Parts: sequence; structure tokens; C-alpha cells
Amino acid sequence: MGGDNSPGEVVKGAVEALRERPEVEIFLTGSEEKIKKELESLSYPQDRLHIVPAGEIITNEEPPVLAIRRKKDSSIVVALNLVKSGQADAFVSAGSTGAVLVGAQLIVGRIKGVERPPLAPLIPTMDGISLLIDCGANVDARSSHLVQFAKMGSIYMENVVGVKRPRVAIVNIGAEEEKGNMLVKETFPLLKNCNEINFIGSIEAREIPNGAADVIVTEAFVGNVILKLYEGLAMSLIKKIKQSMTATPVSTLGAALVKPQLKKTMKSFDLSQYGGAPMLGLNGLVVKSHGSSKSNEIKNSIIQCIAFKEEKISEKIAANIAAQERI
Amino acid sequence: MGGDNSPGEVVKGAVEALRERPEVEIFLTGSEEKIKKELESLSYPQDRLHIVPAGEIITNEEPPVLAIRRKKDSSIVVALNLVKSGQADAFVSAGSTGAVLVGAQLIVGRIKGVERPPLAPLIPTMDGISLLIDCGANVDARSSHLVQFAKMGSIYMENVVGVKRPRVAIVNIGAEEEKGNMLVKETFPLLKNCNEINFIGSIEAREIPNGAADVIVTEAFVGNVILKLYEGLAMSLIKKIKQSMTATPVSTLGAALVKPQLKKTMKSFDLSQYGGAPMLGLNGLVVKSHGSSKSNEIKNSIIQCIAFKEEKISEKIAANIAAQERI
Repeated sequence: MGGDNSPGEVVKGAVEALRERPEVEIFLTGSEEKIKKELESLSYPQDRLHIVPAGEIITNEEPPVLAIRRKKDSSIVVALNLVKSGQADAFVSAGSTGAVLVGAQLIVGRIKGVERPPLAPLIPTMDGISLLIDCGANVDARSSHLVQFAKMGSIYMENVVGVKRPRVAIVNIGAEEEKGNMLVKETFPLLKNCNEINFIGSIEAREIPNGAADVIVTEAFVGNVILKLYEGLAMSLIKKIKQSMTATPVSTLGAALVKPQLKKTMKSFDLSQYGGAPMLGLNGLVVKSHGSSKSNEIKNSIIQCIAFKEEKISEKIAANIAAQERI
Repeated sequence: MGGDNSPGEVVKGAVEALRERPEVEIFLTGSEEKIKKELESLSYPQDRLHIVPAGEIITNEEPPVLAIRRKKDSSIVVALNLVKSGQADAFVSAGSTGAVLVGAQLIVGRIKGVERPPLAPLIPTMDGISLLIDCGANVDARSSHLVQFAKMGSIYMENVVGVKRPRVAIVNIGAEEEKGNMLVKETFPLLKNCNEINFIGSIEAREIPNGAADVIVTEAFVGNVILKLYEGLAMSLIKKIKQSMTATPVSTLGAALVKPQLKKTMKSFDLSQYGGAPMLGLNGLVVKSHGSSKSNEIKNSIIQCIAFKEEKISEKIAANIAAQERI
């Protein structure tokens, strides 16, 4: 029920995922009346779609912790309880980011040993995608958090995205080992000594769009800035280019000719096509989709959950973190 | 003598500035022989161009503090001493950023009361430019530093760039006052209570390219990430768009037609056209130009110094900071 286009686009996305992938089964939590109305005009496999009524809605304006505690009948809390009880493997939401992140920790809970579950969106690069970890709401991270992010991110990229020995780098303001703020200087040697990951050193923000690393480790404040600037700058540049192309009659003609190719490029830099950002390290999967998600992003967010489940990511993270604890 | 294209492009840029602005007088520090060779093929007003010999060069690889202390005859140290002695008003360099920033503080020195001199590049936005302050080498800033950055940045934007009552915002991961990391939460109320500036609150990185603020305050690590990502992402996107446009014969024809307009747009997002980044709060002006600077950026960096001197920016900063100290 959250996000800018719900329940319309969310319901549509769910139906598209059901049609595309026969192994998917979906529970839609929220107003039964509204969901049924959206479903009326759609055809879908009815045996794999269930409505679980939830009478309340958490808005973006509410303080997350309070909202999760008080609104037990909200679509977010009802859905998270389905994951907690094991009835659902994953929860996809376009609703309040704060409420989803807080609720995921409070209700679904962390894997034993995981200190802080990161939010890790995939971002487009020149010729592929990279995982940016962490972009969550918990700032002021410690170095031990960042090491866990690096491990969890590697497991995700290797098993869900299919990158062999993913290159892990830490965001820094220079390539040299002695550069950086206190957190980076503290984390760098820990990552260097971590045998389970393929650590390649520091990455300057300039190199991120070039795809210089597969797993980009940073604390949530910087990660959030990178993610938002990525979105904002790409949008601004594309808007400006479109404006310039239609500035004169000649360029307008040219614009019509380059349009099909240009559209492809724009699409490859559109973050929504990769689906939402998974929150890792939980006893179940939670995927946070953009508030502005259209059905396509919802569908891709759901499909992402299949590989996560099939590749047993949570189990792999649990085993990895447990191994670390034993050392 | 530093940077990727020196002394050729640096000498050319200096000559272009001399030709364009009659009030400029230039000292070129470095190898007399090499500089003279570059000057041979150029025509310029000889009475306003002086060579000050300097036998050493500081490279990007050298530890800055050590290099500044040991290489007394380097082009950077010799130039900084000209500013210190008052023979020059400003120093423009495309050399080692670390050495320039360290040298500026050690040799030119801070204005009394300035806790930390920030590096503040101008960045392009949808319809103008904003000042991003700080992008320097001193990370792990305190809130009192950020308040001084906000004041110095406002003075610069108002007097050098000509923005009336520049809007000041602090980089944050949400618009609400309670969001942010410890540093932002501590700084926010200080900026809010600061009467000398026009503080408009938090800015999310997504809004920076839209020009939502004139002075964008942040500590150097985040500022550096924003600056580098700005450069890297714009370059990657433009490269990708160019590739896509020439992918088919039809689109190649179209590309030829949109090219002149597109070039204008690319230029407006090219950081080098605004000249280098001024380092504020010093007893003189130091401008750090990109290592990859061509003559045009060097010229613009020099021209930037004229307004800085004419508008008495250092004096205004000194008065402002002194006023604060008296309170």
C-alpha cells in the first residue's frame, strides 16, 4: 500500500512476475477491496496469488520505529510477519524506506552474528552492474560492519548476479593505502587480510561508473550520497541532452534519428530496471523498491528473490559469519 | 611544472589570460629553459610576464608534507613564497593536490580564526553553478569547521560569482532535520542559528544537479566523493551516449545533426570550464586546477583570481570570522 503508485503498479508488477515465472507465489498485503479492484482487469494464475488483508498504512512521514510498533495491521508489518513465520521467503516493498528497514530488523530479525544488515542496491556501470553496500539508514558504521558488508556483498554478487570472484573495493578519496578518513584507514587492513573476499583496494568515486569494482563497500551516509547522486545526475544530464537536441529544427530532425539507440542507453542507466535493493543479513529476504516504482521495477524486484532463495543466500551468509565467529 | 600537461598547457593558459585581461600580471615558476622554449612560439605582453626560476618538481607520488619541507626550490614552494611575501596575490597550480593544499597552509598560512581552509570547486547544475565546500584533503571535520565553510562559501558565491543571498544547504541523506550522521545532526542547528547566511536546510545528493542550493556544505570525504562521481558519471554517460549514437547508419546520420547542440550541453557539464577550485580562508588565494588541465582551464583559473582580489574576499572572510570570534 506504500509508494507513489500503489496499489495499482504494485499489483500489476506482482501479476507480471506471476505470469513470467511459474515458481513464484505471491501474497499481497493491504486493503482487500482496493487490491481486488486492481485485479479485476488483469488475468493471472489465481492459485498463486493470495490477498492478506491489512487495514493500516504507514506513510513516509511517520517515525519508523513508532509506526512499526503501533501499526500492527499495516501492510508492511503484516507482510514482514509472513516472512518471519516462514509463510513467505521474501518481502518486496515500495513503501516507507525507514519503516521497511526498521521493521525488517525488528520483525524478521538478523542472522546470528550479523552486526548490521546493509541495504545493497545494484547500480549501472559502463558495461554492467555493481553492488553498492551500504545505502541503508544506519549511519556512523564501524569497521567490523564494513568487513561484514564486503563478505555479504561478495556472496550476493557471486551467487545472485553470477560474477565469479567479485572484485571488492572500499570507497576512498585516493588510491593510496594511507589516504582516507578514520573509518577507511581502520577498515582497509581488515579487508586486506580477509581471505574469503577478492579485495582490490580503494576505489575513487570517479571509477565507480567505469565498473572498476563489483562490490563497492562504504558506510551508509556515503553510500546514500553516491546512490542519490547517481540517480539525480543521470536524470539531469539526460534531461539536458534531450532539451539541447530539440533546440533547433536541424537538431530535432537528428534527435528523431538517434532516438531508438539513445533510448537503449538511457535504459541501461535506469536504476529501476535492476529491481529494488536487497537488505542482506536477515532471516529472510527484504527488498526495498523505489517509492516511485512502476510495475516493471516491482516485477524485477520479485524475480530477484527467486535466485536469492534458490542460491540459499541467507544460509551462505549465516555459514560465512558463523565461520568468522569461530575464528 | 606539475600536472599532466606542463609546462606546455600551463604556459599557454597564462599567455591567454594575459591577452584577455590587461590587469593580470603573471609569474611563471619552474625551469627557465623549458618555460622559455614554450614561450618562443607565443606572442604576449612581455612586461606582464616574468619567469621565476625553480629547479625542483614535486610529483603526485611524494608525501606532501615531506615534499614541501624538503623541496624548497620546487615550483610549488617558490610560487607559494611569492604569495606569502605579497609579490603575488594568488597561486594557480595543476600540480600535486596534496602538496598544494599542505603548502598553502604551511607557507601562505590561514587567516586568523579560520580553523581549516576548505577547497571549494564550482560544479555545474541544470541552469548554473554551485559551490561544493569542502573537497580538500583534511577529512574527519568538526561541526565548527562546517559552519565556517558555510560562511566562507557564502562570501565567495555572493562576491565572486554574483549570487545574491546564496542559498546554503548541508548534504544529508534525507530532508528531515532529525536525519543524518552525528556530524550533520550536530552542525544542522548551528547553521540554522547562523544569521549571516541564508540556510535552507538539508540537501539530498539527488537535488545537487538540479541546482537546489548555491553553497553545498559537507565534510571533505563526502565532498570529494561527490566531486569525483560528478566528473566520472558525466564522462561515462556522455561516452555511452556517443557510442550509442554511432551504433547504426541511421543514428550516425542523426548524430551529425544533433552534434552542435549536444556539444554546447556537454560543455556546460564540463567542470574544467569553470576554472580550478579556490582554497578559501588563507592569507592570499590558492587555486587548484585539475591535473589534466588544458590551457583553457588554466586561463579560467587565473581570471577567477581577479574577482577574488577586486572583491577583497580574504578581507571579507577575515572580518566575518573576526566578528564571530568577538561574540
